[in-house]
Amino acid sequence: MERIDGAMTADLEEVVECECRVHHESGMTPFTERIGESGKERVGIAIVGAEGQLAQAGDAERPFPLESVSKAVVLALALEDVGAEALFERVGMEPSGDPYHSIATLEEGELGVPANPMINAGAIVATAMVRARDGEERFGRLLDFFRRLCGNPGLDYNREMFEAEDKDLNRALFYYMRNHDVVQGSEEDLLVPYLKQTSIEMNCRDLARIAAVLANGGKDPESGERRISEETVRIVLTLMLTTGMYDQSGRYAVEVGMPSKSGISGAILAVAPGRLGVGCIGPALNEHGNSVAGLRLLKALSCRRRLGVFAE
Amino acid sequence: MERIDGAMTADLEEVVECECRVHHESGMTPFTERIGESGKERVGIAIVGAEGQLAQAGDAERPFPLESVSKAVVLALALEDVGAEALFERVGMEPSGDPYHSIATLEEGELGVPANPMINAGAIVATAMVRARDGEERFGRLLDFFRRLCGNPGLDYNREMFEAEDKDLNRALFYYMRNHDVVQGSEEDLLVPYLKQTSIEMNCRDLARIAAVLANGGKDPESGERRISEETVRIVLTLMLTTGMYDQSGRYAVEVGMPSKSGISGAILAVAPGRLGVGCIGPALNEHGNSVAGLRLLKALSCRRRLGVFAE
Amino acid sequence: MERIDGAMTADLEEVVECECRVHHESGMTPFTERIGESGKERVGIAIVGAEGQLAQAGDAERPFPLESVSKAVVLALALEDVGAEALFERVGMEPSGDPYHSIATLEEGELGVPANPMINAGAIVATAMVRARDGEERFGRLLDFFRRLCGNPGLDYNREMFEAEDKDLNRALFYYMRNHDVVQGSEEDLLVPYLKQTSIEMNCRDLARIAAVLANGGKDPESGERRISEETVRIVLTLMLTTGMYDQSGRYAVEVGMPSKSGISGAILAVAPGRLGVGCIGPALNEHGNSVAGLRLLKALSCRRRLGVFAE
Amino acid sequence: MERIDGAMTADLEEVVECECRVHHESGMTPFTERIGESGKERVGIAIVGAEGQLAQAGDAERPFPLESVSKAVVLALALEDVGAEALFERVGMEPSGDPYHSIATLEEGELGVPANPMINAGAIVATAMVRARDGEERFGRLLDFFRRLCGNPGLDYNREMFEAEDKDLNRALFYYMRNHDVVQGSEEDLLVPYLKQTSIEMNCRDLARIAAVLANGGKDPESGERRISEETVRIVLTLMLTTGMYDQSGRYAVEVGMPSKSGISGAILAVAPGRLGVGCIGPALNEHGNSVAGLRLLKALSCRRRLGVFAE
Repeated sequence: MERIDGAMTADLEEVVECECRVHHESGMTPFTERIGESGKERVGIAIVGAEGQLAQAGDAERPFPLESVSKAVVLALALEDVGAEALFERVGMEPSGDPYHSIATLEEGELGVPANPMINAGAIVATAMVRARDGEERFGRLLDFFRRLCGNPGLDYNREMFEAEDKDLNRALFYYMRNHDVVQGSEEDLLVPYLKQTSIEMNCRDLARIAAVLANGGKDPESGERRISEETVRIVLTLMLTTGMYDQSGRYAVEVGMPSKSGISGAILAVAPGRLGVGCIGPALNEHGNSVAGLRLLKALSCRRRLGVFAE
Repeated sequence: MERIDGAMTADLEEVVECECRVHHESGMTPFTERIGESGKERVGIAIVGAEGQLAQAGDAERPFPLESVSKAVVLALALEDVGAEALFERVGMEPSGDPYHSIATLEEGELGVPANPMINAGAIVATAMVRARDGEERFGRLLDFFRRLCGNPGLDYNREMFEAEDKDLNRALFYYMRNHDVVQGSEEDLLVPYLKQTSIEMNCRDLARIAAVLANGGKDPESGERRISEETVRIVLTLMLTTGMYDQSGRYAVEVGMPSKSGISGAILAVAPGRLGVGCIGPALNEHGNSVAGLRLLKALSCRRRLGVFAE
Repeated sequence: MERIDGAMTADLEEVVECECRVHHESGMTPFTERIGESGKERVGIAIVGAEGQLAQAGDAERPFPLESVSKAVVLALALEDVGAEALFERVGMEPSGDPYHSIATLEEGELGVPANPMINAGAIVATAMVRARDGEERFGRLLDFFRRLCGNPGLDYNREMFEAEDKDLNRALFYYMRNHDVVQGSEEDLLVPYLKQTSIEMNCRDLARIAAVLANGGKDPESGERRISEETVRIVLTLMLTTGMYDQSGRYAVEVGMPSKSGISGAILAVAPGRLGVGCIGPALNEHGNSVAGLRLLKALSCRRRLGVFAE
Repeated sequence: MERIDGAMTADLEEVVECECRVHHESGMTPFTERIGESGKERVGIAIVGAEGQLAQAGDAERPFPLESVSKAVVLALALEDVGAEALFERVGMEPSGDPYHSIATLEEGELGVPANPMINAGAIVATAMVRARDGEERFGRLLDFFRRLCGNPGLDYNREMFEAEDKDLNRALFYYMRNHDVVQGSEEDLLVPYLKQTSIEMNCRDLARIAAVLANGGKDPESGERRISEETVRIVLTLMLTTGMYDQSGRYAVEVGMPSKSGISGAILAVAPGRLGVGCIGPALNEHGNSVAGLRLLKALSCRRRLGVFAE
């Protein structure tokens, strides 16, 4: 893992400063419905390197819901629980070419089998494969896993957000897959824990810590304790690179080149394997559902620090 | 309406006889899962003409569930209740090119709006537009409408079949449409009455009576009482011709040419406007979900009697 | 066939008058690229009934290219030449749900087999099946057929239009189908006659005469001579009803109910079987490629005169 | 770059030996139509490391046509000629989810713009952007580029193969794109050089040398001379990883993890960045169009030597 020095912090501040100016001048509509506000302080970034050293800039400490970012972590726990062979019998590994919430994609290829674990249907399957007797235990294990990865026992999900959310689209995905025996069980046991964990809230520092565990081959960079197996890390990073940024994944791989996962809260978790973990937030989204500010921050950072996987 | 004479009965017997031979020799697998048996007596046909005169051949008196055949009747009641303008804001009029249970089709064009009322999603919308305070009243009104059309107050739905059926695929369609505000209400109020009415059971004579009302411009051919408005009949017949036979509707329009609706119980309701109403059953299905025997019976009959809309 | 009386002429004039007002007030952009002008005189209609009697209103005598309208006539000649069985091995009978120029549709179902003869790819196949030694003879036979149907030996195609047209999209369809052995032969022999016949020019009166032959079961209404077999007429009318108005065919069947074929020149050929043949023009197109004025004229006329197939 | 030692050669021989046994026992049909024979000697692999050191096993010296493997190299030359910005205005960077020869994919998103440069349509665009006055010069520049990368001035294309090939599908793609102005020019100038270069023949050693230039950041590992810019190498490797193995790219990235490009001749070019270049051949193809033997060889090798990008 890479050491964090003053130059890194300066870099972060510069890219955030620059991004906020662009963001402000463009007058882009921020994602206010769930986050509540916008402006300069709403763009934030944090980086974790060797020994858990941290750098941050902008609004890196205010919490946001994870939304789709959590799919990468759910995938990791499902892989740890049941192994790659069992998991990939029920979810594919290919980019779908369709939006993350698409149901049409479930009628292509093998009926009811989602294209990959980074779209909603695929993450519902991954959640369903997390070992537990019921929905409560399933969500409990997921929340615990997030807490251990961040080293933050105070993490929780946003109850109002979970209650208020329109669940019908995910219900449609769930029942379609259940009809094809891809998942087996009740809404309560399988779908509810999926929906709850998308509402887990954290800030950029927490997010960067999760990214740093992935960057460090599955070990906590501070304590050196293993959190995820090497094999699981390898699979998760690969799927993040090929499918983590919605239907912009291909372009992002070329332009940024870091295995990443974005969410519609404007959060992005990005990994420079062997070097750094990054978490950032910027609520305004582009038409693909990716954070406009986040894309710019990560592109600038990847370029300056040559963080892309094929970058040297 | 056309008078039924001895020649017509002879014709019916001949086409049934011929069909049973073909059916038997081909060794085709009949649709036994829900019907329970097969063989010669399972192919049946009935015809109703002027003054409600009836001719029948084969196994025309044993009941079967309507399945998709009922979609034509549900459409009629929804049109009578809310009118064409309101109905066709929430369901299209175009052939879908996709299977009747497809969910992918809901992501094409206007999100969540089914292509036409003859596919599952479209018939769920039509059911939802039938005027009623709750699901029980909604199903009650539908059952009543079927009973009046057939002149058979003993009609009912098959409770065991309704209970046993896998409802997940239709749940997926329902929640997907509810997510897009195409339907508004609960599973209990909207989806349950749809599922119940697909389980309504009748025989070929009942089915032919419904067809005869449509053939007679909406009036009961026996009593002369109006059951459906002319405008509704016109719309239902047109949609039966363009979309009533799943993704074989185009070929069927060329080869048989009678506005018809088929179901996966092997039933077909067919109309020769101004002349005759036909109901037939034959449980073996082809790959499109249409009755093999039914297609042959109707093709032979249409050819002999020139019953197709462009046939004289 | 129906007799044309003064009331019919008055009806025609009234619907044209009314349409021109709407058209003018809406400020809709007319299809000027190929036609050259617009306005009141560019909306025209002609009707041919019993004994070839004619009524017309608006600009019914100025010629326009047929474009896709010709597909219905090409289908008739191909059916007369090779029969339904041979033709429908290479082109389907189902609505495609895709735009008329779609190439994607050729990758659905049987590779390279067009959905129906009313889309470009299907009409190229139909042209290819017209019997001839080479492209020149093939086009010659097509032009002759059009001339006989109209009773107008002066008909010809527009050479400049044919030369100027961008042929690449149709080339793509042609080579894709040739790759799958659906057509066999050269661009010169198969594609060129297709392109030439889309450039054949006629006016509303000519068009109405073709429609009247179809309405009269294949016989010229004036001379009583047979021009097309009954069987071919039946098939052509059915496909016009189910697929003749692009991806608006279903709605048009409900709202107008006459077997029709439209083209992007704004022309529509419409048939009231056993009663009347109609030809009309109105260059402004809606988003489906159908004439805005034509749709209104035919809807009004069909409604007043109850010309739809299920209308009485 | 990694040094090649005896252990590497032993590894290669072992994986080839093992693969040939599996291949033989499974009785899989080899790709004999173009290659002419099969069996043990037809499975071959070569590896190039530091200073151009070479190891090989199996049938590594008999030539085969490149087919789609060449798409990675054409992309490199087009990027060197016009730059990423100009190129990616006319071809995307996203996996298509469709087969490599799909034409339907051109109707999705921006009309006529191929999803990525690793499918036929995209490679035709890349070829068209290689700077040249005409088709002959264009192909000449491509052939030269291949010769320089391999350090083999004797490379050429297979004339009989080029002549005999059915060109209609690629013609369809070409004209469809030309219709949408994505390419501008004649078949002779743009399509012919594309088709010729797919017929270029080389053996595993040549292929491994090209791979080694990509592995070495664009410099020839033997001479140290720059052949391709760093920026181009970065883009080509990324697109190979995300889209290089047809619609199996996602799974291959997880299981093998080396940026690779396969062709239907059974060839695969694979890169371990900073370490090794690999070329292998095995004519039997799976249903995705990838070499069965090649996939096994590379999976075994990647696993033993930890060659995957996330394999540390």
